[in-house]
Amino acid sequence: MDPARLPPIERLIKALKRLPGIGDKSAARLTYFLLAAPPDTAQDLGEALLRLRREVLLCEQCFNLTQKSPCSICSDPGRLETELCVVEEPADVAAIESAGAFHGRYHVLGGTLSPLEGAGPETLRIAPLLERIAAGNVQEVILATNPTPEGEATALYLARQLTSHSVQVSRIGYGMPIGGDLEYTDALTVRKSLEARRQFGA
Amino acid sequence: MDPARLPPIERLIKALKRLPGIGDKSAARLTYFLLAAPPDTAQDLGEALLRLRREVLLCEQCFNLTQKSPCSICSDPGRLETELCVVEEPADVAAIESAGAFHGRYHVLGGTLSPLEGAGPETLRIAPLLERIAAGNVQEVILATNPTPEGEATALYLARQLTSHSVQVSRIGYGMPIGGDLEYTDALTVRKSLEARRQFGA
Repeated sequence: MDPARLPPIERLIKALKRLPGIGDKSAARLTYFLLAAPPDTAQDLGEALLRLRREVLLCEQCFNLTQKSPCSICSDPGRLETELCVVEEPADVAAIESAGAFHGRYHVLGGTLSPLEGAGPETLRIAPLLERIAAGNVQEVILATNPTPEGEATALYLARQLTSHSVQVSRIGYGMPIGGDLEYTDALTVRKSLEARRQFGA
Repeated sequence: MDPARLPPIERLIKALKRLPGIGDKSAARLTYFLLAAPPDTAQDLGEALLRLRREVLLCEQCFNLTQKSPCSICSDPGRLETELCVVEEPADVAAIESAGAFHGRYHVLGGTLSPLEGAGPETLRIAPLLERIAAGNVQEVILATNPTPEGEATALYLARQLTSHSVQVSRIGYGMPIGGDLEYTDALTVRKSLEARRQFGA
């Protein structure tokens, strides 16, 4: 059935249920919340959604999401061209930016290698990454894919691809998350955290 | 700042955060999901939101949400006029309808009495309820406000108001929820469930 022909409440519930983590009950609860809230709550959200896909595009250099290409990071002369941080997704750029500890440029792969799902190297933006490194002033490539099996495999693959390039290749550090509790942390993280120990005060 | 002037990603994250149960992380996660999903996912949701408040109104008889007044339940000659189920919110009508066990009419109060928050009887649709009962063929009023302190107080208030009317007044049953587990059920519910015990097979 064409969603435009559903009654408005059913239509919104159905559209909300397509979002991750939102089931029947949450979708109905959100809908009734919006019906009881000031009208501009639903209006603002609706307009923001319609604008999202019209106005957001990918940066031609780093493949991060942006409103104009090249993006504000790629076109910022204050960001170091010598350091290139390779991440899986645009959300990872946002996470690293909000940490405020990195002042170089990014390269968004668009996912990870995942042979079981048929995602080989050609599905990622690896060729443009190698071109950027070959063309430019990059001295260090920081592999900041996630510490998951797929992220690790992708980092390993990239590290091997980069051996023939004269760049330093590094991997983000592993260990205990700040605020974490040893009692509730998985064994592998605890082991990695012990391996990564540093002299106190160093 | 006018939300229309925010960049589209920040604008959507901000609009999503106004929804109950959605914080910074969930709003960002949903936004990146929508950016990666087929474009019609955000489009459908946006249009459904804009249509919601334009097309949904309150039924003039029962105050349920509807596209035309009187609503489909109030205008259905197959629904008993003799039974009137009083609920707090439109979502409660939807819950009872999906149970499929009630074939009468509804009256939506629009909330509960809540003296601490300044919500007295005049903030609820009690006057139109008494008018409906005085005017019509209602024989039984089922008080289906929630089993919370506010819902109980509201049911008690309504029951007292209705003593002068020649209608039977009933309250929904209390007890163990189906699929519940005595071990994890609060003591009051367990007590109510024991008080409400019935002879086996009856």
